[in-house]
Amino acid sequence: MNNFRNDYKDFGSPEIYREIEKLFDEKISGYGKDSLSNEARELIKKEVGRDADIEFISGGTAANILATTFVLRPYEAVLSCESGHITHHETGSIESTGHKVVTVHSEDGKIKPSQVNEVIKKHSSEVDVKIKLVYISQTTELGTVYSLDEIREIYKVCRENNLYLYIDGARLAHAMAANGTKIKDYAEICDVFTIGGTKNGAIFGEAMILVNDDMKENFRYYLKQKGAMMAKSFLIGLSFKVLFTDNLYYKNAKKAYEASRLLKQGLQKKNREIVFAESNQIFIKSSPEEIEKLKVDNEFEIENEEKSIIRLVTDYKTSDDDIRGFLESLI
Amino acid sequence: MNNFRNDYKDFGSPEIYREIEKLFDEKISGYGKDSLSNEARELIKKEVGRDADIEFISGGTAANILATTFVLRPYEAVLSCESGHITHHETGSIESTGHKVVTVHSEDGKIKPSQVNEVIKKHSSEVDVKIKLVYISQTTELGTVYSLDEIREIYKVCRENNLYLYIDGARLAHAMAANGTKIKDYAEICDVFTIGGTKNGAIFGEAMILVNDDMKENFRYYLKQKGAMMAKSFLIGLSFKVLFTDNLYYKNAKKAYEASRLLKQGLQKKNREIVFAESNQIFIKSSPEEIEKLKVDNEFEIENEEKSIIRLVTDYKTSDDDIRGFLESLI
Amino acid sequence: MNNFRNDYKDFGSPEIYREIEKLFDEKISGYGKDSLSNEARELIKKEVGRDADIEFISGGTAANILATTFVLRPYEAVLSCESGHITHHETGSIESTGHKVVTVHSEDGKIKPSQVNEVIKKHSSEVDVKIKLVYISQTTELGTVYSLDEIREIYKVCRENNLYLYIDGARLAHAMAANGTKIKDYAEICDVFTIGGTKNGAIFGEAMILVNDDMKENFRYYLKQKGAMMAKSFLIGLSFKVLFTDNLYYKNAKKAYEASRLLKQGLQKKNREIVFAESNQIFIKSSPEEIEKLKVDNEFEIENEEKSIIRLVTDYKTSDDDIRGFLESLI
Amino acid sequence: MNNFRNDYKDFGSPEIYREIEKLFDEKISGYGKDSLSNEARELIKKEVGRDADIEFISGGTAANILATTFVLRPYEAVLSCESGHITHHETGSIESTGHKVVTVHSEDGKIKPSQVNEVIKKHSSEVDVKIKLVYISQTTELGTVYSLDEIREIYKVCRENNLYLYIDGARLAHAMAANGTKIKDYAEICDVFTIGGTKNGAIFGEAMILVNDDMKENFRYYLKQKGAMMAKSFLIGLSFKVLFTDNLYYKNAKKAYEASRLLKQGLQKKNREIVFAESNQIFIKSSPEEIEKLKVDNEFEIENEEKSIIRLVTDYKTSDDDIRGFLESLI
Repeated sequence: MNNFRNDYKDFGSPEIYREIEKLFDEKISGYGKDSLSNEARELIKKEVGRDADIEFISGGTAANILATTFVLRPYEAVLSCESGHITHHETGSIESTGHKVVTVHSEDGKIKPSQVNEVIKKHSSEVDVKIKLVYISQTTELGTVYSLDEIREIYKVCRENNLYLYIDGARLAHAMAANGTKIKDYAEICDVFTIGGTKNGAIFGEAMILVNDDMKENFRYYLKQKGAMMAKSFLIGLSFKVLFTDNLYYKNAKKAYEASRLLKQGLQKKNREIVFAESNQIFIKSSPEEIEKLKVDNEFEIENEEKSIIRLVTDYKTSDDDIRGFLESLI
Repeated sequence: MNNFRNDYKDFGSPEIYREIEKLFDEKISGYGKDSLSNEARELIKKEVGRDADIEFISGGTAANILATTFVLRPYEAVLSCESGHITHHETGSIESTGHKVVTVHSEDGKIKPSQVNEVIKKHSSEVDVKIKLVYISQTTELGTVYSLDEIREIYKVCRENNLYLYIDGARLAHAMAANGTKIKDYAEICDVFTIGGTKNGAIFGEAMILVNDDMKENFRYYLKQKGAMMAKSFLIGLSFKVLFTDNLYYKNAKKAYEASRLLKQGLQKKNREIVFAESNQIFIKSSPEEIEKLKVDNEFEIENEEKSIIRLVTDYKTSDDDIRGFLESLI
Repeated sequence: MNNFRNDYKDFGSPEIYREIEKLFDEKISGYGKDSLSNEARELIKKEVGRDADIEFISGGTAANILATTFVLRPYEAVLSCESGHITHHETGSIESTGHKVVTVHSEDGKIKPSQVNEVIKKHSSEVDVKIKLVYISQTTELGTVYSLDEIREIYKVCRENNLYLYIDGARLAHAMAANGTKIKDYAEICDVFTIGGTKNGAIFGEAMILVNDDMKENFRYYLKQKGAMMAKSFLIGLSFKVLFTDNLYYKNAKKAYEASRLLKQGLQKKNREIVFAESNQIFIKSSPEEIEKLKVDNEFEIENEEKSIIRLVTDYKTSDDDIRGFLESLI
Repeated sequence: MNNFRNDYKDFGSPEIYREIEKLFDEKISGYGKDSLSNEARELIKKEVGRDADIEFISGGTAANILATTFVLRPYEAVLSCESGHITHHETGSIESTGHKVVTVHSEDGKIKPSQVNEVIKKHSSEVDVKIKLVYISQTTELGTVYSLDEIREIYKVCRENNLYLYIDGARLAHAMAANGTKIKDYAEICDVFTIGGTKNGAIFGEAMILVNDDMKENFRYYLKQKGAMMAKSFLIGLSFKVLFTDNLYYKNAKKAYEASRLLKQGLQKKNREIVFAESNQIFIKSSPEEIEKLKVDNEFEIENEEKSIIRLVTDYKTSDDDIRGFLESLI
């Protein structure tokens, strides 16, 4: 099977297991206050390049709940793109905390600064919720990648209107591989963001970077309350420690990106209609018959059944054989 | 001032105050279990024509919270029209209870049965919320009126998909005046609905008609929890008792409707562009200059500033003079 | 029937209805921004004697939800006495908004300052909720009355620990009649409090006095979201306008208090065991047989079935005949 | 350092890592629907011995949120012991979902059946929450262990009153080691329970056993909504697969238990006052001076600072040297 289903089908980078082997008989304290987590924090802080609190979260949905709703008053709301992960891939998790998610339409998974302004204008009275936080994802759910300038413009509108900006970085690694940005770039243009581990070679887990002071105080209370503070949080700490040693985090992402370029080139050679292919998620147009044929030897997600759009995801373990195999299965 | 701002700018029908005068020294028990509320229940039950529980609610927003969310499991959601009152006139009240409101677009404030089916189809996996209740309003927020057949078709789709249907009847009286329907018609084609008092001559308050058994058990616990069970709930009971004596409820609505017809005819004579005028809410196209002029002698809401659409609401106390006065103020 | 069941079994003070008669054909704007509400605000502000925002709320449970939870972050909690109305007379309404109510034991319905300190000390880590607001009621649910010094001491502890203090004044009138305090006294020793209307001759409704600036901004959003902002809020405004004209509010409370003194004296003459009798709620020890006998001609609540404690409530309409009648029914 | 701080300071059983090594290049599907999770389910089902759904949860707090609140209607509440983990070690997580936790006092961390009945009796009206689920933990937070008969009696009361019973089995392994019970015993006397992995040699994670049909339908929606469904859930599946192969789960627990017996005997020999020592958590009375001395070479939790009670936890990796070391550090 050539597996392009997702980028979290692995056990994590072998380097992490080598570290576990070394530390195996250590007794490590719980809940993210351990030495491994602290070492990871120091390494990440260097990347961030400015004062920030760092917490380790069990997964992406939990991270999104925490980052978007921690600072909200009851009548405040989150603004997201219609394709935003929080709006229809997380079973109403934000609303479950009592907050509305207001959406704007987007063809490419990105919010435009003017849309933020328009929505604020429309929500101007006490019978409307108050928009207080903007959610964007980098890469987006469609694999598209914001330029720093695009995010900077959104952040500018946020500050002008006293809103927070959160960047869901579940695939931040893959965005950075695609556009050459660095973690410190993001720390300057938002209030809180995540550095995804699950999708780039951690055993599992996400690092949350709390930049704005409003996000910091008592954040760990919320982390605990929402069930996202793990007893063995040191496993996430360890993952990030290893990932930010010798640039493994960037190296993993580069491998995934290069695999996606190879795949894209192969698809282009075959004159396939590519819908989005900016990063390690590639969306192409297929057909019902081809999808059936592809399923025999390949794994992938059908993004849109009606339009026969399928999603192909590469990761740091995708091999040339996988790619060649997939390309050969195409009609 | 000719006042067309809304239909709840009055103290309630004089008949209610005559009843209060008669009963003034009675000592009445609290929380809606009193004799006045029970008499009102009996009168309403006759109108409903089938087994139903009846509770009296302090106001429309509270009623909507209760009716839409009482039966929901945590992962279940409400479906509403984009213009639905619950989506942007109630400050995120439904989301505040933990439930998402999924919306569909509509030009005339009505949901089509096919839209219900489409949304259900789109929400088919465990990462989506599950649609469980459809919210419609009669009249709609745009003053349009569903025919019974239109609601019946929606209800059919609901039952086929195991969804509940709630009719927000804050202006049910005005719908019935417009299309000649009766309360019992609605009791047959939904699971729960309200009979609005505030906007048709009650002192204040709404009657909620719980038709489906699922809505009944322990409903009063929720009424209390959400702060919508009034100590002096008998004031609502009394209002409804009087309104459903000698058909006052229908008579009030008829007056409001007739006033709206007179206004509509006057507007047509002046060749004004009417956007919606099916019931006691009339929406017309104006202009920025005219709006300024109209404000001098008239009260009304500006529905859409950009498009200069204004809303004119009649009620049972609207006089011919009000209408004549308004028409004369037009450019 | 001699009715001592509660203090909200009336239609409200006749003076209010005289005012309604005068204003009957006025058209009044909605949601508490009307002239009547504003006049009431001015009258109340004079009583308050310092800068404060004033909003009118549909009822006591709604008021408690709003005042206790508006300022809370998700991990923050309310501290209350075990007998506090919010802990077991409101169907979990505070928890329903996502916040824990931490309780302390009390024999007389009052919290002691030392208890606040103890609870804070016990809630010292991130696996505990953070106490952020103290809820007290004046009079308490047992009819006992805090002295100003007692509240002042609690407020001192609150400020030392960065907590808010909310005084549920559903029966503030009755406390003031009992101990000679004035509204302005309370405005100096808490962050937010209510002046109850329902239980002292308003048609219905409570006035909320938002003293601390943290409580003010966007409070009306929350009022709307929780379904407690009434379309015809002017009815509450009008009630308070009349109640604070010619000291009617204080006069009503005085009548209720004097009736309670008469009742207390009668009970003492009969050597009845009085449990609490500081204000218009009197709790006495009875017996199962006597309770049966009393039920024939009297209405009252059984506070504690096991201990045969009954509650007798007087209000501004309680007559000497009611009292005499009750006393004569005693065994 | 002799480390008795907790039973989750390890990376998990070496057997699990051997399995990971074997499977390292497999590509595994996400969210708990993978082959490893399914194999684990089959192994656990054999232990359970009856029809049940099994889901894997990221951690204990998340598991408790899910199991206690999934089936609740908005006005329903959870009953717990005052020392229950959900009441003061989880930052108000249950209340955060909108539900009250009603508590009963207990000296030994166990609920008595009579207490359930008493609380139900006290919560009899619509102004009270309705108790709907009883939470117990096995072992309790004090390391005490329910006998099957004790739980059976509680379950009987639950069924008589239409309540659910949830057993928090974060340390179920340690209870089974202490009293010789088996997993199937628990499946017969509750509606839902967890089999803790984190504290008995899993990498991390808990297995939730949904016995009652009411708990099953759409449970995964809630799992997702609350952020507790992990992308790499197969890590938990794998852990449980290994733990339930060759009885490793029972073997680990046995080691922890035997270590605790050795420790207990040593303490008894030294005539130490033992507060609780039924399972792998041992609570003893110390003194402020001794605690200071003990801290030099030992790690442990201070349970009660005032009373100088400390907690010593053994696990499957506790060595005889640890125990000897600790005992020698005692004054």
